[in-house]
Amino acid sequence: MFDLIVCGAGPAGITAAVYAARQNLKTLVISENIGGQAALSGDIENYTGFQFITGPNLAKHFEDHLRHFDVELNENQSVSSIEKKSDLFRVNTGEGSIKSRTVVVATGGKPRRLGIPGEAEFKNKGLTYCAICDGPIFSGKEVAVVGGGNSALDATLQLTGIASKVHLITLNREITGDSIMIGKVGNSDNVEIHSNTKTLEVFGETFVSGIKVEESGSEKNLDVQGVFIEIGWVPNPPKVKFESGEILLDKGGAIKINEHCETSIPGLYAAGDVSSVPERQIIVAAGQGCIASLGVFKYLSTKKFN
Amino acid sequence: MFDLIVCGAGPAGITAAVYAARQNLKTLVISENIGGQAALSGDIENYTGFQFITGPNLAKHFEDHLRHFDVELNENQSVSSIEKKSDLFRVNTGEGSIKSRTVVVATGGKPRRLGIPGEAEFKNKGLTYCAICDGPIFSGKEVAVVGGGNSALDATLQLTGIASKVHLITLNREITGDSIMIGKVGNSDNVEIHSNTKTLEVFGETFVSGIKVEESGSEKNLDVQGVFIEIGWVPNPPKVKFESGEILLDKGGAIKINEHCETSIPGLYAAGDVSSVPERQIIVAAGQGCIASLGVFKYLSTKKFN
Repeated sequence: MFDLIVCGAGPAGITAAVYAARQNLKTLVISENIGGQAALSGDIENYTGFQFITGPNLAKHFEDHLRHFDVELNENQSVSSIEKKSDLFRVNTGEGSIKSRTVVVATGGKPRRLGIPGEAEFKNKGLTYCAICDGPIFSGKEVAVVGGGNSALDATLQLTGIASKVHLITLNREITGDSIMIGKVGNSDNVEIHSNTKTLEVFGETFVSGIKVEESGSEKNLDVQGVFIEIGWVPNPPKVKFESGEILLDKGGAIKINEHCETSIPGLYAAGDVSSVPERQIIVAAGQGCIASLGVFKYLSTKKFN
Repeated sequence: MFDLIVCGAGPAGITAAVYAARQNLKTLVISENIGGQAALSGDIENYTGFQFITGPNLAKHFEDHLRHFDVELNENQSVSSIEKKSDLFRVNTGEGSIKSRTVVVATGGKPRRLGIPGEAEFKNKGLTYCAICDGPIFSGKEVAVVGGGNSALDATLQLTGIASKVHLITLNREITGDSIMIGKVGNSDNVEIHSNTKTLEVFGETFVSGIKVEESGSEKNLDVQGVFIEIGWVPNPPKVKFESGEILLDKGGAIKINEHCETSIPGLYAAGDVSSVPERQIIVAAGQGCIASLGVFKYLSTKKFN
């Protein structure tokens, strides 16, 4: 019987486990990988304290931090489902079922892919899914943002102050989203909007040198050094069975949490990119892992178990 | 005219400024010091990515991170008040008044002091204000927790699993707080409750070796190697004048924020220990600085200024 099972070992899960270990909770971490999306990132310069670090290197620091503590770690294992019966959780994996008094779900998510040629090949080589993270790398360069909603508008506005030119490419007839943002994008000198446009391919040598699009029926190439895919986020929550009802998700499929990282199920916490957190950033996920873990401690302190 | 003025340069303020700089916002940081409470901490082993680091050293990493970016910094300056008229903020310091479109308040706070001999002298030398942060240092040692409410109970329960013995010292006749926590403290083999007890002095050589208390009228010494002061938190918000009303504080005097770090005043954000954040931890404050800064960017993107 564990006090806490942490599902996932990205920034949120690792931080939750570090805090739990320091409070002497009997803790198990179950994860398919270590580092989560952070480990797949390119260069990172917004994790406070590290001016500049690569994603894999930051993930290594996180892993070392975790292994420094007395935490059990089931690696290369994924959580298929979580059940709660009376006061106890069962976390089910392909290799069995493990009991715990509390659970922190930190199984992350991933950006929605376009599914076009060159997308995987040029990831972190000019192609990225996060303008906040990677925008500044493209200072003075020509870039494309692919997407048609608020996050594409947000990325475009961030990039207008950084890139020499921003192509905003959308399948729709018109950009949708916040009207003032649309106005600001429309008034930007260095934004060109391509509506009715399908992105067909990303190409280049080592790095991105352009994209092929089909604009109003005809194919053409755009010479860009950066491609920002902004078409949504796919959270990765495990199935949760609970006798008193469902776990609440938001409309995007993320686990709904409050400011204490509590979900709709007592004793079950969520943190990081699998949750309804407003920003998907490493430093935010780590902070939430801390909040969830301290919430677990308080839950255990203020609850009588049968 | 700045896009953003950040008040305070602890983990929250520095992270807010780093994110703002990377989005090309014209940013000014005003702060009395750099590093905030983090710089005054002893050893830190729960800031994810740094297995072990001293407070001043972590603060230096934060400072280097901040200075790496194109952010103006008014050091050794404190914000006396903030005014908002129509759409603009004026941030007032002893040296003048500076205009900005948005403000992030990250002016922190500090633990409430007991005000007894030895308290200042032995800070970080056995005496601490944070059981979550420093508890594990006292593994196998005898410690005292001073305080009579939920945070003292929380600290005591954390320490029961770590220390050999915990003295819980309260001025009151009885411990107050969550009844289950009180029950667990009462049932702990290694907790001794001293009610009606005043803490008079902390003493030792280089490190704490004991405290002098007055218990039910008679003075005595307790041999402890650790002293945890858990009597409250004093947030440090600047005065805010706003034509449409007051800024909302919680009952502890912290600035009320929502999950986006928005305060009750549009364009004014708060982050870290000055805010109503549920946990006062460095990693949480840094995460909030990020959320506040990205909130500022969205506010600026979705607002028409006159």
